[in-house]
Amino acid sequence: MKKLMNDVESLLGESLNGFAKAHSDIVNLTTQPYFISRKALSQGKVALISGGGSGHEPLHTGLVGRGMLDAACPGQIFTSPTPDQMMAAAEAVDTGAGVLFIVKNYAGDVMNFEIATEMLEGESATVLVCDDVSLPANHSTGRRGVAGTLIVEKIVGAAAEVGADLATCQSLGDRVNKATASMGVALTSCTVPAQGKPTFDIADNEIEMGVGIHGERGIETIAIKSASEIVEQLALVIEADLNITSGQKILLHINGFGATPMMELYAVYELAEAYWQQRGVEVIRSLVGNYTTSLDMAGCSITVTVMNDEFTKLWDAPVHTASLNW
Amino acid sequence: MKKLMNDVESLLGESLNGFAKAHSDIVNLTTQPYFISRKALSQGKVALISGGGSGHEPLHTGLVGRGMLDAACPGQIFTSPTPDQMMAAAEAVDTGAGVLFIVKNYAGDVMNFEIATEMLEGESATVLVCDDVSLPANHSTGRRGVAGTLIVEKIVGAAAEVGADLATCQSLGDRVNKATASMGVALTSCTVPAQGKPTFDIADNEIEMGVGIHGERGIETIAIKSASEIVEQLALVIEADLNITSGQKILLHINGFGATPMMELYAVYELAEAYWQQRGVEVIRSLVGNYTTSLDMAGCSITVTVMNDEFTKLWDAPVHTASLNW
Repeated sequence: MKKLMNDVESLLGESLNGFAKAHSDIVNLTTQPYFISRKALSQGKVALISGGGSGHEPLHTGLVGRGMLDAACPGQIFTSPTPDQMMAAAEAVDTGAGVLFIVKNYAGDVMNFEIATEMLEGESATVLVCDDVSLPANHSTGRRGVAGTLIVEKIVGAAAEVGADLATCQSLGDRVNKATASMGVALTSCTVPAQGKPTFDIADNEIEMGVGIHGERGIETIAIKSASEIVEQLALVIEADLNITSGQKILLHINGFGATPMMELYAVYELAEAYWQQRGVEVIRSLVGNYTTSLDMAGCSITVTVMNDEFTKLWDAPVHTASLNW
Repeated sequence: MKKLMNDVESLLGESLNGFAKAHSDIVNLTTQPYFISRKALSQGKVALISGGGSGHEPLHTGLVGRGMLDAACPGQIFTSPTPDQMMAAAEAVDTGAGVLFIVKNYAGDVMNFEIATEMLEGESATVLVCDDVSLPANHSTGRRGVAGTLIVEKIVGAAAEVGADLATCQSLGDRVNKATASMGVALTSCTVPAQGKPTFDIADNEIEMGVGIHGERGIETIAIKSASEIVEQLALVIEADLNITSGQKILLHINGFGATPMMELYAVYELAEAYWQQRGVEVIRSLVGNYTTSLDMAGCSITVTVMNDEFTKLWDAPVHTASLNW
């Protein structure tokens, strides 16, 4: 294992300290317990809090700021944060309108956010993100939350910023989640520092379809094929799941897992855009880049959100975070 | 070799098409010959044009837009663009105040930009960027232009945007280049699609110090060491080259080569910031992320620019491109 780090134990703390210093105009870092919070809180606004295992940066810490999250709770790598982090973050950023937790659907995250919700004195609600359609809708633990989480956070963040109340934000988040589907492909595994070796083996001529974002195996190992064929295989599943039909408008998000060059991500975007265009589906908004990563994994996911005027207006609203700015 | 692509020949074109579609609010793509240009030109403004081999994205295409470049000419991967690209780009974006070419110091790029300059009818000037201090100042072909190029482009771009004339932009670019030094470390090599295998071999316990951005070997292969030791080795060379002394203010840019997780880049930032703080040098601005990449290489470079009030004001000026936005 080769990593730019001092040791496994110090990496997360050093990284969070560096992040907070590099973006000291936008965020504060609290270390006991760890959370990143928005520097300029907006009084009377619903507070949006997300979090999850580290290793997916810029998700979620890089999405804290005006128009998006008020706080992010980073766990150890690929490990849920603890309820005390969520409670401390909630107490720090709740300015009276309650807290909305945006939680990716993993057993540990769900349990810990539930505990925090139960122990919190203030009003709170939760949006559970489960956009990974590589798993069947009736999967035992439910579908995983992956790159679509960013889209939920952006759209709900914009609504909260202009005064939507807690119930409205929660319902909006649920609707964005329902309108969103993702599926990913990995070319390589990733190496968790504490393990010191790749989380799965994959041959030089194989790719892994339907991967999540924790270096877990996908649903199928196949021989590598052309980008067009890969895009089609991913898009077909998304299309069927969301029941996308001609005339609809979508947001198309190509998310890199961390080690895939931008050149390849934009080529995938081009091919995915063509896929939808051929079906009479209009790509009206896009996002291409490494946003929901899996450490040093090569590969990408395709995320589609079926848009309406409400979602589009909120997507377009100003955002000022370390990693999304417009 | 595993890449998300259809074939070696189509990758660049598909990628540029995808890029232009994903950012159609900011840029236009011309395909005969290839260049990316700013959609909303500013009449009477000095036009800034850069370019170079592809494989370094988001440099330079992702830096076209208000407050930065007016056009970027992408060559094949790690190969200089041709003079016809530069001339076509110049003709498209010169609105009467002349063209400033910002060129990274590589023999092919320098030669082709020179040819374009000679053949152009309009007024033009060139800033040659040579910030890579891993090579001695008297190196036969001069020092290479690496991640400091972005800083030259940002600062000069801001000056051009508010009306600086061609000579002023050129002189400013030269001054930023002189105030800037970079040095990089690679943990892995990178794979150029047309070659199909890594450009150099490196053992699992080795790192390559003083690498450039084209998968070339660095100046020294050493056993891997701690991030603090790596940062110190890089920073010492930068410090000596720029003769940085206590009381100075710097911009600190940690640039990922493409396959290094943000978590590691922020940890490197934290350690580098501490290095300068211990010497009484104040980090007043920062940029952390994958900006001047080398395809799928793991590793990073440290870039320092010694700042003054003029540079700082121009760095802070608004910018609206695919990859830098504030």
